[in-house]
Amino acid sequence: MADSNSKHQDSLQSICYKRGSLQLLDQRKLPLETVYLEIKGADDGWHAIRDMVVRGAPAIAIAAALSLAVEVSNLEDFIGTSDDAASFLNSKLDYLVTSRPTAVNLSDAVTKLKGVISNAAATAFEAMSVFQAFLEAAEDMLREDVAANRAIGLYGASFLQSHIKDSKNLSILTHCNTGSLATAGYGTALGVIRSVHAEGILLRAYCTETRPFNQGSRLTAFELVHDNIPATLIADSAAAALMQAGRVDAVIVGADRVAANGDTANKIGTYSLALSAKHHHIPFFVAAPLTSIDLTLSSGQEIVIEERSPKELLNSRGGLGEQVAASGICVWNPAFDVTPADLIAGIITEKVLVSLFLSIAKHVFIASDILELYDQGVITKTGDVFDIKDFIHNATSHCCK
Amino acid sequence: MADSNSKHQDSLQSICYKRGSLQLLDQRKLPLETVYLEIKGADDGWHAIRDMVVRGAPAIAIAAALSLAVEVSNLEDFIGTSDDAASFLNSKLDYLVTSRPTAVNLSDAVTKLKGVISNAAATAFEAMSVFQAFLEAAEDMLREDVAANRAIGLYGASFLQSHIKDSKNLSILTHCNTGSLATAGYGTALGVIRSVHAEGILLRAYCTETRPFNQGSRLTAFELVHDNIPATLIADSAAAALMQAGRVDAVIVGADRVAANGDTANKIGTYSLALSAKHHHIPFFVAAPLTSIDLTLSSGQEIVIEERSPKELLNSRGGLGEQVAASGICVWNPAFDVTPADLIAGIITEKVLVSLFLSIAKHVFIASDILELYDQGVITKTGDVFDIKDFIHNATSHCCK
Repeated sequence: MADSNSKHQDSLQSICYKRGSLQLLDQRKLPLETVYLEIKGADDGWHAIRDMVVRGAPAIAIAAALSLAVEVSNLEDFIGTSDDAASFLNSKLDYLVTSRPTAVNLSDAVTKLKGVISNAAATAFEAMSVFQAFLEAAEDMLREDVAANRAIGLYGASFLQSHIKDSKNLSILTHCNTGSLATAGYGTALGVIRSVHAEGILLRAYCTETRPFNQGSRLTAFELVHDNIPATLIADSAAAALMQAGRVDAVIVGADRVAANGDTANKIGTYSLALSAKHHHIPFFVAAPLTSIDLTLSSGQEIVIEERSPKELLNSRGGLGEQVAASGICVWNPAFDVTPADLIAGIITEKVLVSLFLSIAKHVFIASDILELYDQGVITKTGDVFDIKDFIHNATSHCCK
Repeated sequence: MADSNSKHQDSLQSICYKRGSLQLLDQRKLPLETVYLEIKGADDGWHAIRDMVVRGAPAIAIAAALSLAVEVSNLEDFIGTSDDAASFLNSKLDYLVTSRPTAVNLSDAVTKLKGVISNAAATAFEAMSVFQAFLEAAEDMLREDVAANRAIGLYGASFLQSHIKDSKNLSILTHCNTGSLATAGYGTALGVIRSVHAEGILLRAYCTETRPFNQGSRLTAFELVHDNIPATLIADSAAAALMQAGRVDAVIVGADRVAANGDTANKIGTYSLALSAKHHHIPFFVAAPLTSIDLTLSSGQEIVIEERSPKELLNSRGGLGEQVAASGICVWNPAFDVTPADLIAGIITEKVLVSLFLSIAKHVFIASDILELYDQGVITKTGDVFDIKDFIHNATSHCCK
């Protein structure tokens, strides 16, 4: 198993980084070809994110930071002060954030990196010190993401094992790709499924095709097969029938962005799954790092939904292949939808937030957990308050079966 | 417009028949190529239906009957009695019905044709008389289907116009293909949309992609563009978000088979749309000829759901094209799902049954309509009773907005 895991790490690594060098696995070519693209700087990074060479909220934030990191590492003749270095980095970061406007991880990462840059510029005279501080911060993000995902997986598996009847044979439905390919490693929602499987209590994982870009059939299915996890692919539209047949114990999805009241933007189709899960009394969970929670948004109504190219529906392979649809038809192709908090049983994060939802599942309100979390500064948007009361009120209307 | 319509009839005719000759439009090649396959007899017909050259519940029944009709027309040396002719035809019909086991129209058509054959064999001495009676009955089915669809379209449009607020600007969502290509002409659910458009009260039609065989993006979109009907294609999974955005006034789908209590088997994804429609208080209608109602089935639980090849999800173009999904993944690919009657606001047919649902919409119970219909012999399965009470009870829990 150790060999298999290490081989897995090798073969599925979406971000290959060492200082001065970044290669991104071109996920558009999976599962048929394994091709890495050399990323020389922020401009390459912007295009790789925009064109979905790399996707998944956590992965794009790290890819963006590291694309600038390699550019900085390879700068030969930067002439200027520490403030000039800060300006250079900030303008590159502002540019990078425009590559995928909906992804809060990306804008949060940029905000965090700008803070590091600002501190370094305030204390150093040389540009090189600012660059060095930025480099170390970008590299920390890579390490921290894997650690966070493993924590999400462990919390989630433990939560499901404790709170779902017949938890020895769980069938879990997921959507889109939230695995090693969407993160720096292991995954969020797929990380929970990996952990449930590692505990020996997974009967079967179901993954949706995830139209129109087929992240499920191409990427999630690829990861599940690779890890020898018992798994079945379904059309997105078959999920309700699968639930009707009693074959789903829980739904776990990732998040692109979670608003302060718990409303969650995620891949198009998530909302439909949540509605079906509600109808069939199946608990519906979001698994996401705390960086996906955006306390500046009071509700999902404030989340801007990116609309993508009609070609994703008109042509095969997410717009890259042959024409499949009728010429001349209009297309509505939103990348995400918003699932209201009252359809979500819990949000599994890498921190104690998960214990809040454990409490909810037991119908016990433990506000102290979230207050403690707030005191610890894990949720620290200045001037904003996590609207936890409303979220708890909504979430308590659902419980595990 | 007359020119455009007549051109439309020419270009979209899926079944080209004259006595002794049958050509079926190969719908697997649409929208890129318009290729007709010559059908010489029942064996060609069986494969064309099984391989989805022709699809749509009404169209396959007619294609099956006509495939045998051309075989019979071109028989050169049949030696035998009228009973021998009847046996010959009956065994060919039994074979044809195995091509798509879920489609009640096909088995109903076969039952009806066997009745014609039996009557002819009982009164004639010559085999030729039995063949002639069969030929005429098969050809009548073709003519009657177009007439029935036009009636469904008119009833449906009139119904929507009368019972939906702001019915001057209707946005209607449909699923799969139920148009000229699924029937002998005009269509069922798409026939209603055509009629609504002809009345000048259609703001926009939305069609789902309809994975995994893409009947929506390939065929429905093709028909809508061809008819200059304002139309937008969406991913199946985007339907709930479209409803959430307030952009759908009604959902209209076809039916593969309707049970006696109103439970309806239709293309996979229909049930998911019905759940989303219920959540958003959007009326959900089935448009189908009376031949789709199978009174031998007391509920949807008795409907056998056909499972189709994994290749439809693993490869592009419904299994015919290049590989798109990960190798080695298991697939669950049901062709249909069952929408319970309590999610259906009404079933629009070509006969007075539609007036029953008009009554439901007004919260007025007019059982006399259905009893009259039953007395007229429109629903005439020996020994069976249409479980209309339960259906009304279920349907009255929904109403138009």
